[in-house]
Amino acid sequence: MAFMICKTLEACSLLPKENCMKILLIGASGTIGRAVHALLAPRHDIVTVGRSSGDLRADFTQPETLQKMFEAAGQVDAIVSTAGNLHFGPLSEMTAEQFNTGLQDKLLGQLGQRWLRDGGSITLTSGVAATEPIRHGANASTVNAALNGFVTGAAVELQRGLRINAVSPTLLTESAEAYGSVFPGFETVPAARVALAYQRSVEGAQTGKVFEVI
Amino acid sequence: MAFMICKTLEACSLLPKENCMKILLIGASGTIGRAVHALLAPRHDIVTVGRSSGDLRADFTQPETLQKMFEAAGQVDAIVSTAGNLHFGPLSEMTAEQFNTGLQDKLLGQLGQRWLRDGGSITLTSGVAATEPIRHGANASTVNAALNGFVTGAAVELQRGLRINAVSPTLLTESAEAYGSVFPGFETVPAARVALAYQRSVEGAQTGKVFEVI
Repeated sequence: MAFMICKTLEACSLLPKENCMKILLIGASGTIGRAVHALLAPRHDIVTVGRSSGDLRADFTQPETLQKMFEAAGQVDAIVSTAGNLHFGPLSEMTAEQFNTGLQDKLLGQLGQRWLRDGGSITLTSGVAATEPIRHGANASTVNAALNGFVTGAAVELQRGLRINAVSPTLLTESAEAYGSVFPGFETVPAARVALAYQRSVEGAQTGKVFEVI
Repeated sequence: MAFMICKTLEACSLLPKENCMKILLIGASGTIGRAVHALLAPRHDIVTVGRSSGDLRADFTQPETLQKMFEAAGQVDAIVSTAGNLHFGPLSEMTAEQFNTGLQDKLLGQLGQRWLRDGGSITLTSGVAATEPIRHGANASTVNAALNGFVTGAAVELQRGLRINAVSPTLLTESAEAYGSVFPGFETVPAARVALAYQRSVEGAQTGKVFEVI
């Protein structure tokens, strides 16, 4: 499979070993996923994962597909999830199932750790609604805050030098037209700038950190 | 029923109407619940709720018992939950069900709003682990952060002047002997001091606020 061989052997030979990682990029076809891919692919092997596209397929609402995806990918150096699934709707009409939408991302932290090589990292995606409420965003605030809390709590438990962080971006410049009315007056950030936070998490040394990009 | 009549008519007559509230106190038999009761009972009607004690019974893991409890209580001015149910255990062995322990508290925000009089309030309980991780506390960090996020997100959606806040205490002085080893070096706070934060939430004007007591 393409992702089993470092795509950039030439570049890698100029860099320390840890700069040529095998990275599982979940949500690779999204706006953030594409920006992360553009930033990291020149120096790393990226295995793209999506619900309906990518090297491998997985659906977060079906944990068994995550398990199969991990088995197919084998050992990796980093797991990056940019797949943010949230439910937007009035609080008073929200079902328990809708409320749990997005919380499945924490499964990556639980299932993923056994597929990481020593010193590997997990990077999840939360968002600005964790602390900045928006209309019909009770689920977004709850889930984003929960993921930040999960990263805080899980980081101290991981073994073998494994790390876990979250990236919490505000509204993307690329999404301003579609979602600007939900985030009135919010300054936007281009996905390329958000991608830098994933690089910090994957290639850096921090753990239990929420990288806010606002 | 005792709680249908203001227990403190004499005291109430000296105070503005809003100082004699009917307050649903869930988790009334716990350390925090007893302190909140001691602080608020002299000036308000308190309806105590517990899993196995209190004026009314409810079990958070069975949403239908919450519904019945609300029906039995009727309209109230404030809902206070000091019932913090968390799962402690190694992250790698935690099941999805264990992970969702404690998240049921948000149901109070959803179900409870229709039982509140105009201007009424909901006060939930999170905890210091939301931002300060502890061993085997991935669930505690996730759930506490989620409840803080829920309060942030739900506050902007409530109608009729309804308010929602959370109180986030650190380790109680009363719990130091039992749980001190889980929170090494944490300064403790007496439950009586924590109770003040519930008073601020119930009698004050703020909404979407996490009152940290550390």
